[in-house]
Amino acid sequence: MRAAGIIVEYNPFHNGHLYHIEQTKKVTKADILIAVMSGSFVQRGEPAIVSKALRTRWALEAGCDLVIELPVRYVMQQADIFATEAVRILKDLHVSALCFGSENGNADDFIRAAEFASRPEFETRLQDNLQNKEHSYGRAYTDALASEISSLDVTKPNNILGFHYALANQKLGAELELFSLKRTSDYHAKEAEQSNIASATAIRKLLLNDDFFAVQKLVPSFVYQSLLDNPAELLSFESIYPYLRYRLLSDSGSALESINSVTEGIENRLIRAAYKDNADAFLKVATTKRYSSSRIRRTAMQILLQFKKEDIALPYHRLLGLNKRGQAYLSIVKKKLELPLVSTLSKADPKLIQYDVAASRLYRLFADAENDLDGEFASRPLLYF
Amino acid sequence: MRAAGIIVEYNPFHNGHLYHIEQTKKVTKADILIAVMSGSFVQRGEPAIVSKALRTRWALEAGCDLVIELPVRYVMQQADIFATEAVRILKDLHVSALCFGSENGNADDFIRAAEFASRPEFETRLQDNLQNKEHSYGRAYTDALASEISSLDVTKPNNILGFHYALANQKLGAELELFSLKRTSDYHAKEAEQSNIASATAIRKLLLNDDFFAVQKLVPSFVYQSLLDNPAELLSFESIYPYLRYRLLSDSGSALESINSVTEGIENRLIRAAYKDNADAFLKVATTKRYSSSRIRRTAMQILLQFKKEDIALPYHRLLGLNKRGQAYLSIVKKKLELPLVSTLSKADPKLIQYDVAASRLYRLFADAENDLDGEFASRPLLYF
Repeated sequence: MRAAGIIVEYNPFHNGHLYHIEQTKKVTKADILIAVMSGSFVQRGEPAIVSKALRTRWALEAGCDLVIELPVRYVMQQADIFATEAVRILKDLHVSALCFGSENGNADDFIRAAEFASRPEFETRLQDNLQNKEHSYGRAYTDALASEISSLDVTKPNNILGFHYALANQKLGAELELFSLKRTSDYHAKEAEQSNIASATAIRKLLLNDDFFAVQKLVPSFVYQSLLDNPAELLSFESIYPYLRYRLLSDSGSALESINSVTEGIENRLIRAAYKDNADAFLKVATTKRYSSSRIRRTAMQILLQFKKEDIALPYHRLLGLNKRGQAYLSIVKKKLELPLVSTLSKADPKLIQYDVAASRLYRLFADAENDLDGEFASRPLLYF
Repeated sequence: MRAAGIIVEYNPFHNGHLYHIEQTKKVTKADILIAVMSGSFVQRGEPAIVSKALRTRWALEAGCDLVIELPVRYVMQQADIFATEAVRILKDLHVSALCFGSENGNADDFIRAAEFASRPEFETRLQDNLQNKEHSYGRAYTDALASEISSLDVTKPNNILGFHYALANQKLGAELELFSLKRTSDYHAKEAEQSNIASATAIRKLLLNDDFFAVQKLVPSFVYQSLLDNPAELLSFESIYPYLRYRLLSDSGSALESINSVTEGIENRLIRAAYKDNADAFLKVATTKRYSSSRIRRTAMQILLQFKKEDIALPYHRLLGLNKRGQAYLSIVKKKLELPLVSTLSKADPKLIQYDVAASRLYRLFADAENDLDGEFASRPLLYF
């Protein structure tokens, strides 16, 4: 059986994601589709708008055969770590192809860029760019790439993520065949009304504004129905802001410095910003040219979830859901896996799963789950048979 | 000028407090009345129901001449530390008398009990009682006292506090003449309807249940009016519970162990209790014979406010408010003070005031004060001229 992989967040699942799944099956000619998905928190540094259980169901309903969780310690990180660990999981699952959406749409451009980024002259250009202290590391990096690869606009968010997939694949042995689909929606589109495709960002905004009607045509009907059926709170950066603010204003400087992404005194910037009484104002005050709002959000979430510099997270496969085809595929590759496979948290090595258990507990706390903070602990993968 | 001192929380101010002030002036024959008052947080381990600024105004309107804040690090402690530091402040202010309410009402009983507690045979009985691991330290202590002093029922909350005032006074040189007034209300009275006197606990319950009408006859009219005029949120242990819960479920065991009152693995009991989704259930689960609900609340609040074992708090006089008489008295004793006098936080030694500044900031955060978390920092004492 030939398996293809996709790396997703489904925050929430929408028509563009359905297109991605259908096209991935078509272009990769795979029999099996495996999704590596973010869990309770997403890469832009905020809680997922709905639970991972619901997003797993959407993935399976939409045609994925197997859904594996990307551990939270790899999710809320810069693109290179996120991409490397997601590709590592797919590779270990013996996936033949990786298909990702991008503004560019041409896999060869990404492969060329990844090759260039592994050459010494790239490193020289990067170091030159880093002399400009006003720019972030990310800006210096994309400038160095752009100087050579003109056909790939690495200032576009999905292009840069695709580049990191290609780079990760190369680092890990280049065993995955890469495919890229040109995204049909502008990521930053503000007017979702003209089309039945809109970005997850635009859809989240509609949902958080309680404009469910506008969302109806932008998502598959099974997603729409489940959003109506699940009256649970929709989470956002705003939902967790009171807790973040409390932590920033009560922890000592040395406690904040012990957190993973806290470097260069960024904690002082965050503490000052925490005097603002709402999340938008916090982000506005904390963001600079050097510190993008994504960087700020991710650092803030690492503080909220207490990702310590000293902690060592290990990769593993957390099985969130599967159908019959996924089960058949898994029974074949199971013995060949190098990373541990975890079906039920309560039966897993506590050291392996500790950060994801803690993140799920806090997600449920933020979502006001009544007295069932460790509910996920005993839950089994979703069988979509 | 002869000054008398009282140790108060005014959480909120009620008719019993007015009686206490009037009687104190009468029995002590003092010209000046000085109140040492808890600030943003109170000794039972929760935020004060309203701000210290409003409670300072009440104290002055009711006839106090000078209001000094008891530093927060001494407030949320067991009775002996609370009492010792409050008496230390009064003594340094050259107060001649201390008058406190109690169930007993006879100062001599307290003085005799304090003398007994300083003798070696008391220590022997205490150590014997501590062999029973089921009982709290407080229970072992009161049992040892009760074995000798039959006329003072030290199981009553105000008697035990009065005992600690007497003991503190003795330790600090017995310079204050002690007076005790018999409380006219039962502290634990649940039905406030029969009288115009009710305990602060009963009144808080009415206020938190939004039963303002029932409160009207229980508090002086100036208090009632200001409660109506100040629509700000009334704080309680329930208000801070989401933040406490977040901290208990996100901090590491070693971070929790670094907190002042966290001993004997009590953090694990608190973590388990934090799975409960409301403050009442939390307290119910966490409380045992050994750990009273006050001990649990105080420990929880020390965790919330991050009182570290390594921190050293120093005593000082924080001037919250005064009238002309208080000003005249202060101008006389000022030069004789051994402890620093702080009128405006922004001009004080940051090391001295750091814990109180942090506590005020968090109190304002919990009270949803908009963008003015450090508002107290620049504020001046309330002049009630």
